[in-house]
Amino acid sequence: MSHNKLSRRELIAGTGAAAIGAALAQLGGGIISKVEAKVETNKWPWPYEKLSPEKTAELAYNEWYRIFCGGAVISSIFGQLREKIGEPYKSFPIDAFIFLEGGIGGWGTICGSNAGANIVTNLIIGPRTSGSEDGALMGSEILQWYSEASMPVYLPKNPRITSELPKTTSNSPLCHVSVGKWMQAANKPLGSPERKDRCARVTASVAYHVAELLNDWKDGKYKTKGPKPAGMYNIQTQNNCTDCHGANVPMPPK
Amino acid sequence: MSHNKLSRRELIAGTGAAAIGAALAQLGGGIISKVEAKVETNKWPWPYEKLSPEKTAELAYNEWYRIFCGGAVISSIFGQLREKIGEPYKSFPIDAFIFLEGGIGGWGTICGSNAGANIVTNLIIGPRTSGSEDGALMGSEILQWYSEASMPVYLPKNPRITSELPKTTSNSPLCHVSVGKWMQAANKPLGSPERKDRCARVTASVAYHVAELLNDWKDGKYKTKGPKPAGMYNIQTQNNCTDCHGANVPMPPK
Repeated sequence: MSHNKLSRRELIAGTGAAAIGAALAQLGGGIISKVEAKVETNKWPWPYEKLSPEKTAELAYNEWYRIFCGGAVISSIFGQLREKIGEPYKSFPIDAFIFLEGGIGGWGTICGSNAGANIVTNLIIGPRTSGSEDGALMGSEILQWYSEASMPVYLPKNPRITSELPKTTSNSPLCHVSVGKWMQAANKPLGSPERKDRCARVTASVAYHVAELLNDWKDGKYKTKGPKPAGMYNIQTQNNCTDCHGANVPMPPK
Repeated sequence: MSHNKLSRRELIAGTGAAAIGAALAQLGGGIISKVEAKVETNKWPWPYEKLSPEKTAELAYNEWYRIFCGGAVISSIFGQLREKIGEPYKSFPIDAFIFLEGGIGGWGTICGSNAGANIVTNLIIGPRTSGSEDGALMGSEILQWYSEASMPVYLPKNPRITSELPKTTSNSPLCHVSVGKWMQAANKPLGSPERKDRCARVTASVAYHVAELLNDWKDGKYKTKGPKPAGMYNIQTQNNCTDCHGANVPMPPK
């Protein structure tokens, strides 16, 4: 037998290496993609390339109509990084985060776009135990920015609702407060196309800002805008105490 | 040259297959683990094996002191499934979810243990687009259960604080409300060892209940306890309207 005509079986036998046999057995299954899938998802920072904030916002706007606020923010950024970089973004289960809708399953707690933004910044930059606080600080900063912004900030290129939508300031990162104040100003119910498009635009606005901040971070220019609120008030809290407590804000024990 | 003594290079040349060359080039890097890492993270449900709720709670209690409420709930369940099953749990970036602490970066929005529980149920069972609403409904049910429970429910086997801790009912899934009511009842500040151990026990309580519900689901016995609140109130909301609004609860536009 010529070694130019080795059968696959003889080739394996010739090496005597079980590992090679295992490797060859995988060839039909596309070993290249399997190798690509091996990534260090538990080491930070994850690889990042700068993104167009406008393109990110447009993607988020359209994705809202598929997977709603939190999923759309994650998808608008990770979707682009899946194409530009590949793993670990390809393996990340984006669609599972539909549940962030309506402030976590309809409960009106944190606006899903804020939750999605925090997932994105903390997954890319990493937790503070990995050496940088920037992921958490950037996420926290987005909550502050969201609370103060006249929302929706971003106007899509081809909005599904062509009439002008009112803008409101939530003074809170919570879905219930943000949506409730807007619904009151617009006099539109939850199920209206206008309310839906408002939330899609809010999602786009948040995605735009996340891309801006991540681009700054990639350029080594990111500096957080301020401390986290728990350190200021001795309780985990928003900054809008009187919204719920009125003038009689309780003091936490010292 | 005998084919019993083929060099690696000749072996590759003999086949003429670039793919085999690529495969062999990987052998030194441990191709087996790379193959193992190839998983369908975007298909649901993820593989699940029943877990001991008590063991899960103990793991969550201890993990709170490392990665706090949200990370600890995820770690207590995914950590065990990493050992029992492997992927996709091994690749999931658990530690990045430290940021769920203090109701998302200290903002007092959704209690991190509730957010972590929703991540777990939705990642394992999947989003509704994958064919089942049970992941989101189970997550929502946990928020309701948390709001009504006298917390902390679970007493660890070897608690770090040996004095008895008061129990409080939050009537809300929010960190700020849950922690604030407990701090008031206990007269203990945010930085006290008692408050920290209370939150570690709340985390353990949630992890215990998540394991119970997932075990029921695995046995085909899971039935959600009720609808999501947005459908009942025409706004995304908690069920405790008067806590913030007093007697004057605004009505959403119709």
